[in-house]
Amino acid sequence: MNTKTMHQSYSVLAQVVLPMQANPAGNIHGGEIMKLMDSAAGVAAQKHSHTNVVTARVEELNFKKPVLVGELVTCRAQVIYAGRSSMEVFVTVESENTMTDKKQIALTAFFTMVSLNESGKPEPVPALEYDKNNAYEAKLYKEGEKRYKLHNERKS
Amino acid sequence: MNTKTMHQSYSVLAQVVLPMQANPAGNIHGGEIMKLMDSAAGVAAQKHSHTNVVTARVEELNFKKPVLVGELVTCRAQVIYAGRSSMEVFVTVESENTMTDKKQIALTAFFTMVSLNESGKPEPVPALEYDKNNAYEAKLYKEGEKRYKLHNERKS
Amino acid sequence: MNTKTMHQSYSVLAQVVLPMQANPAGNIHGGEIMKLMDSAAGVAAQKHSHTNVVTARVEELNFKKPVLVGELVTCRAQVIYAGRSSMEVFVTVESENTMTDKKQIALTAFFTMVSLNESGKPEPVPALEYDKNNAYEAKLYKEGEKRYKLHNERKS
Amino acid sequence: MNTKTMHQSYSVLAQVVLPMQANPAGNIHGGEIMKLMDSAAGVAAQKHSHTNVVTARVEELNFKKPVLVGELVTCRAQVIYAGRSSMEVFVTVESENTMTDKKQIALTAFFTMVSLNESGKPEPVPALEYDKNNAYEAKLYKEGEKRYKLHNERKS
Amino acid sequence: MNTKTMHQSYSVLAQVVLPMQANPAGNIHGGEIMKLMDSAAGVAAQKHSHTNVVTARVEELNFKKPVLVGELVTCRAQVIYAGRSSMEVFVTVESENTMTDKKQIALTAFFTMVSLNESGKPEPVPALEYDKNNAYEAKLYKEGEKRYKLHNERKS
Amino acid sequence: MNTKTMHQSYSVLAQVVLPMQANPAGNIHGGEIMKLMDSAAGVAAQKHSHTNVVTARVEELNFKKPVLVGELVTCRAQVIYAGRSSMEVFVTVESENTMTDKKQIALTAFFTMVSLNESGKPEPVPALEYDKNNAYEAKLYKEGEKRYKLHNERKS
Repeated sequence: MNTKTMHQSYSVLAQVVLPMQANPAGNIHGGEIMKLMDSAAGVAAQKHSHTNVVTARVEELNFKKPVLVGELVTCRAQVIYAGRSSMEVFVTVESENTMTDKKQIALTAFFTMVSLNESGKPEPVPALEYDKNNAYEAKLYKEGEKRYKLHNERKS
Repeated sequence: MNTKTMHQSYSVLAQVVLPMQANPAGNIHGGEIMKLMDSAAGVAAQKHSHTNVVTARVEELNFKKPVLVGELVTCRAQVIYAGRSSMEVFVTVESENTMTDKKQIALTAFFTMVSLNESGKPEPVPALEYDKNNAYEAKLYKEGEKRYKLHNERKS
Repeated sequence: MNTKTMHQSYSVLAQVVLPMQANPAGNIHGGEIMKLMDSAAGVAAQKHSHTNVVTARVEELNFKKPVLVGELVTCRAQVIYAGRSSMEVFVTVESENTMTDKKQIALTAFFTMVSLNESGKPEPVPALEYDKNNAYEAKLYKEGEKRYKLHNERKS
Repeated sequence: MNTKTMHQSYSVLAQVVLPMQANPAGNIHGGEIMKLMDSAAGVAAQKHSHTNVVTARVEELNFKKPVLVGELVTCRAQVIYAGRSSMEVFVTVESENTMTDKKQIALTAFFTMVSLNESGKPEPVPALEYDKNNAYEAKLYKEGEKRYKLHNERKS
Repeated sequence: MNTKTMHQSYSVLAQVVLPMQANPAGNIHGGEIMKLMDSAAGVAAQKHSHTNVVTARVEELNFKKPVLVGELVTCRAQVIYAGRSSMEVFVTVESENTMTDKKQIALTAFFTMVSLNESGKPEPVPALEYDKNNAYEAKLYKEGEKRYKLHNERKS
Repeated sequence: MNTKTMHQSYSVLAQVVLPMQANPAGNIHGGEIMKLMDSAAGVAAQKHSHTNVVTARVEELNFKKPVLVGELVTCRAQVIYAGRSSMEVFVTVESENTMTDKKQIALTAFFTMVSLNESGKPEPVPALEYDKNNAYEAKLYKEGEKRYKLHNERKS
């Protein structure tokens, strides 16, 4: 099976926050943002695996600032570690006020996605290659690998 | 400030999974379930705090089995640890096939919610009391306290 | 065919009212609540029949108080009378302000659901048994039976 | 206060049934149709009262045939009786297969709407005048009047 | 193949604008209105062709006045020219304030719809006949024919 | 008033097509795509004007290929001509099958957006500068200018 780079799974979803996505207090419903992040994680994983993928786990999902109605939210996702049939995806959400051009990171999270064959059984995915001269990619890969191993130990 | 029991924040949200909530592969969109869990966490936190609450963090969100269109999903949430102005909420999702009465736990997660006053600043919440004769409540409380302290150490 | 108790079909759906469900005047759109009640009636009927069910009739649907954005609405449904292939379901909606813990019954209604086989033809359902020592169950059953007979007479 | 005719409140809402409105069994969710009927009743009542209106009661809502995804549903509503501040609205739903031009009445119901002033208190509405030479209008009016009186007696 | 009149495809869709359809500035989201117009164009085309239809082109879509939350929008569509397998549909949107009965034309557009057979290939449609004594129909037909020919020339 | 480049308004919205966005025939509802394009046009215009903007006109909206459920749709928008208070925005939609990495342009259109001040009156926008050494930008600008002048002549 071939190998893919981190860059090959890089994916962007983006939308304007509509009033219908607000919670009763007027900010965007946290669940709406989580839904967007989950979609982006799915796109990145599928670009890596070229199979059906499902969400298995979400870790360290942090809200860093509230997202307001009318802002542009851009969600970026990238596979940062690949196991046998699972992939860890790093997802960030940036919010932008298009009246002032001010941009901020609003959320980050790690999603673990699993590749499935047509019978719904785990299906192997390509190995992931990171750019060894790129400190950012190396750091993401090593932390992903650490979380993957820690999770597997806990299960066994 | 008064004290509240774990039971006082116990909350239930439930819905039937509609075709409009499916992902392109036919199961429920993971993000739809996360949205339901986030709402339930918000209700439980608000029953404890009687203030506005926002989601700050999601940890250990695990999908244990896929949820299918037509199933009844029942989401239960309960505050299991309270800090000064933050609350940790344990959320479970049970799926039920109402044709066969078969029920299964489909997901679990820990949500950290923050209590806010009307200016959007953190607002203290009642202390949480757990039933010392109830091993389940005691375990949830102690694990919540551990995660709370670990998170605060990492930040500082 | 076996017999089932009223309790066996008891079902709960619950949600937080979102701004997207409001009508132009700011309260929840009556139709949104009716949709929730219809879903709950369907769940209760399916728990009784273990078949596909469709709505045939709604009677005495009364709005007792307005439901506001941000409230928790809990919809309870229970089969209270069963004919050959139709079931009468009593549905109540309670609204709760989670800031103050104040709860009120907001609506009640009777839904008649019909059990269908895979060809879409009426399919017999289990008989319904009520607890003869429970005055509440007995009253609901007898009123349901009366409405059922009255409706059948009108048709013939 | 002036008088209005039945014709003045005649209102039409219409939509194509989308897959997102289907229930898990594939027909339109009964609640989606009830939501459409409630909107139509609101439009007809507001054309009569020129005030804010809310739904107070639904009676004799009957599903006569299932509505399928892809059909055109046309919902017609008309005030058929007016009390002091309440209006009874007759609502019908016709479904049309636009591939074959076949039309059928799918549902009918009576909605009672209440006129409210800006403080949310009942607000008188114009009297309703029906065409005494029109047997259909006369029948609707008299039946509406009968239900109105019966309901008021039950309350007192 | 038979011939159909302009009147035979005349179609009406109508809805009340809900808060969930507003854009962040509070008016109806332009895209929501375009979605309604597209549905109406599809209904009119299907009434003419009795086949599956898809949107191929939108021209001269003009917003003449803003549409507000709470208004009744009525969208009328009619096939005004038919080519071999394509149909040009004229679509208008009227907004009505049901508190004051004031009506205004809010948008107009020309949609080109294509008739498809079950393999997704273009499928011929009936010829369109207009009432030669009706100046309005004649004008719409001739302008539609002109746009159709102009478009075909540009493509070749 | 300052001048802005074409690049400064370049905006991207992207989403995965969900089953709930399908039309009864199974492809994405044309109106859903138009809604996405309208949002993207609004973002690009607002990045240029830093004011509220509304849609005034859509021209030459062409569907080049059908968009399928499960595809990733990426909508790109850019102001290509600016009048006194109106902006012409070129919008393209690319669909991508993330199983095969195949990408295609699915739609293109020109949206005219108008800048409004807080009273809802037209508000001047910055002039638009294009890169004279960039043949693509120059062509878009000149065609936009031509459409703008043609439209103004027709109105007068």
